[in-house]
Amino acid sequence: MLVPVIMSGGAGTRLWPVSREGYPKPFMKLADGQSLLMKTYQRAASVMSTDYLVTVTNRDYFFESKDNLSQVNSKVQSTFLLEPFGRNTAPAIALAALDILEKQGPEAILLVMSADHLIKDGQRFEDAVAAAATLASQGYLVTFGITPTAPETGFGYIECGDVLGVGYSVARFVEKPAFEKAQQLLASGNHLWNAGIFCFQAGTFLSELEKTAPEIVTIAQACRAQLGDGAVTSMQDYSADIFAKFPDISIDYALLERSDKVAVIPCDFGWSDIGSWQAVSELTVADETLNRTVGQSVIVDSRNVYVQSHDRLVAAVGVQDLVIVDTPDALLVVHADKTQDVRKVVAQLKALGHDAFKLHRTVARPWGTYTILEESSRFKIKRIEVKPGASLSLQMHHHRSEHWIVVSGTAQVTNGDKTLLLGANESTYIPAGNRHRLENPGVLQLIMIEVQSGEYLGEDDIVRFQDNYGRC
Amino acid sequence: MLVPVIMSGGAGTRLWPVSREGYPKPFMKLADGQSLLMKTYQRAASVMSTDYLVTVTNRDYFFESKDNLSQVNSKVQSTFLLEPFGRNTAPAIALAALDILEKQGPEAILLVMSADHLIKDGQRFEDAVAAAATLASQGYLVTFGITPTAPETGFGYIECGDVLGVGYSVARFVEKPAFEKAQQLLASGNHLWNAGIFCFQAGTFLSELEKTAPEIVTIAQACRAQLGDGAVTSMQDYSADIFAKFPDISIDYALLERSDKVAVIPCDFGWSDIGSWQAVSELTVADETLNRTVGQSVIVDSRNVYVQSHDRLVAAVGVQDLVIVDTPDALLVVHADKTQDVRKVVAQLKALGHDAFKLHRTVARPWGTYTILEESSRFKIKRIEVKPGASLSLQMHHHRSEHWIVVSGTAQVTNGDKTLLLGANESTYIPAGNRHRLENPGVLQLIMIEVQSGEYLGEDDIVRFQDNYGRC
Repeated sequence: MLVPVIMSGGAGTRLWPVSREGYPKPFMKLADGQSLLMKTYQRAASVMSTDYLVTVTNRDYFFESKDNLSQVNSKVQSTFLLEPFGRNTAPAIALAALDILEKQGPEAILLVMSADHLIKDGQRFEDAVAAAATLASQGYLVTFGITPTAPETGFGYIECGDVLGVGYSVARFVEKPAFEKAQQLLASGNHLWNAGIFCFQAGTFLSELEKTAPEIVTIAQACRAQLGDGAVTSMQDYSADIFAKFPDISIDYALLERSDKVAVIPCDFGWSDIGSWQAVSELTVADETLNRTVGQSVIVDSRNVYVQSHDRLVAAVGVQDLVIVDTPDALLVVHADKTQDVRKVVAQLKALGHDAFKLHRTVARPWGTYTILEESSRFKIKRIEVKPGASLSLQMHHHRSEHWIVVSGTAQVTNGDKTLLLGANESTYIPAGNRHRLENPGVLQLIMIEVQSGEYLGEDDIVRFQDNYGRC
Repeated sequence: MLVPVIMSGGAGTRLWPVSREGYPKPFMKLADGQSLLMKTYQRAASVMSTDYLVTVTNRDYFFESKDNLSQVNSKVQSTFLLEPFGRNTAPAIALAALDILEKQGPEAILLVMSADHLIKDGQRFEDAVAAAATLASQGYLVTFGITPTAPETGFGYIECGDVLGVGYSVARFVEKPAFEKAQQLLASGNHLWNAGIFCFQAGTFLSELEKTAPEIVTIAQACRAQLGDGAVTSMQDYSADIFAKFPDISIDYALLERSDKVAVIPCDFGWSDIGSWQAVSELTVADETLNRTVGQSVIVDSRNVYVQSHDRLVAAVGVQDLVIVDTPDALLVVHADKTQDVRKVVAQLKALGHDAFKLHRTVARPWGTYTILEESSRFKIKRIEVKPGASLSLQMHHHRSEHWIVVSGTAQVTNGDKTLLLGANESTYIPAGNRHRLENPGVLQLIMIEVQSGEYLGEDDIVRFQDNYGRC
């Protein structure tokens, strides 16, 4: 029994402005329209025809993650382990291992993978997983080591020890090296990149972790106990009080570097951690002047320029070695060699209290999305899209009234005491103080324009009376 | 009698995406909120306390130009000479000279200036104009020569001849030179930049032009004759048939290089033709790393970067010598040394038939502006702003219905047979086929959101029944 465990925690600040705190890297869509998380789910589902997996993510990403899974493969079921905040990989994997141990027994094998990596060669990946599973069933903690192709300073390295069946024992873990050291490691021929993919039995993992970091196992058990027996279902929302006791520590430090049962499988399946815009740009084919574009653009007398635009026209003239990433409310222009430094922008925005580190102009909600088209001190205009069958909460605003105009699909509207059905090109008016609700009873996406008027237009002017997503 | 003549013809393609065919360089607003045309009107009005001037511009720019003038100085009157298309400066000045000759007599002095140049030192400019007017009243065709400060290749040069009172006779005009030639001209000490500012009597100008390019005078007279006596008023809209007969020729070629009555006044009043984004960027004070920003931005590890943003956040990381200009629907990233090449983008857009060479997301109309906030195949959302007292035409659409929601100010709405007054937060619905009209009866700007629905949403689905601006 092999259970994929999807670790969906990374903030991806180096991929701002597409990746933001409220909609981080795993949800970032590539040019084919699929998010990194969707691709990860697809990969997980195709490994040994899995129909069950575990996702560990922040509680804020639950609905969007679930939605990603259902878009990829509606037959695969996931248990969602929801963290109140991030505490690195060791606590996350411990919680997953406990859950799988209980449901599938100690010999169930976990395949732990990140939600925001990319793997090009699916067949080689499956072969590597099969090899890893063999070693795991023999009691090893198996890591995946990528054959290095360059002196990368952004990854940790694994030194191979003795031959161990289809892999090697691990002689040593090497932290992210400086450039010269990276060159030596590359030249040595027996060092691999640590891809952060792991494979082990639930029982072996927990008994080894008991030896090297017993407090993590204890806190994980406490987190689980607090849910109560009835709650240990497909959605486990851990209490912040107990979760806060976890140390912030990676599985490498907490266990792998201290255990003598660690093995490594050398791999070459086109792995990328999509760690920067440079890495993203390489996914697009370059023209003869090394320019790559996604979206509308005009490139004049330029070389080695990557342009990614959402819906605006981008013109580049006489420039080279640039990455230009455009989103509806924020733009990034960065030198191709400095894409690692994009996180400095996010740090500055956070320090300034600017919303753009956190929110996009389009905000995901359990029921769909809203997009702010325009706002001023006295009015705000939103496009609201509601999924078929979905429903916003029954709510009321003290300070704003709303005009609703349906432009596509059908809306069922509760407005005070009345309930009405609105088709395209029909409208209604919700005065401040009226209880109201918006539902999509149809099978098509509902698209509606909302014009808000009032003296205060903050999102926090909302009283919820009933909500299908537990937000009352 | 001195009459300023404002030549407002330049397309300003090097200042795309702010300058576009539908809203060209003279209307471009600088950081202080004033357009180049407004600044030019202000300068013209302050010269010898002028209260009358002549504007030569394209007929499409009439309302916006008039509006610019009224915002600067409501006492100054302008006659508008409206061209159906551009034919360079000689025909434009000939038409202005004819008009001024007829209304003010042959000794009236024209001060011809471009609508899209900048002059920093108003007092020195006035002094230079006074000196030029003296020479003009003696029968000279006076040019303004700027003391050069660099070997500029983008300007023509004027070689000074004999001393002539407060100026010099002109020995020779030199076309835009190559760089080495420009260095020689700068070193010579007796060459000045040709600023395209001229001063002469109406009578002298026309009799000299009769000698060097008589056909221009003949066609100008024919243009004027076709208007009819009654129409030679404050707005002269020339027929395209006759206007098309003008040769496309500058006043330099048609007259100044061929006349022996040409003088030059050496000037040093902080002149700039704002010919590129490089020139615009120099209007903003640089910080210690030579970065200059207008609008929201985060600049990290960068040097000599100019960022101008309308309403989006722009982040620059690890770049140098860049100009970044952001507008709601188009973005430009250009090397600081290549800003002259921005016109290549406009040429490509024009060849591609892309709207962005022509229109902004906000479109100026005689009654105010509209801004497209969002559009799809079935709906379009606009913010409409109507000036106090202004009125859209009485109109009808075959294929679209419209929801109107007032968010600020007061609207008087004709909707079929009814007339109603709408205040903020009130709305109405205009079904397809209904005659309707929108007016602002108040003293504040009217701001309204319009949601259009229908199978066809093109601007050409409009039947106008009555219009205050002659557009029926």
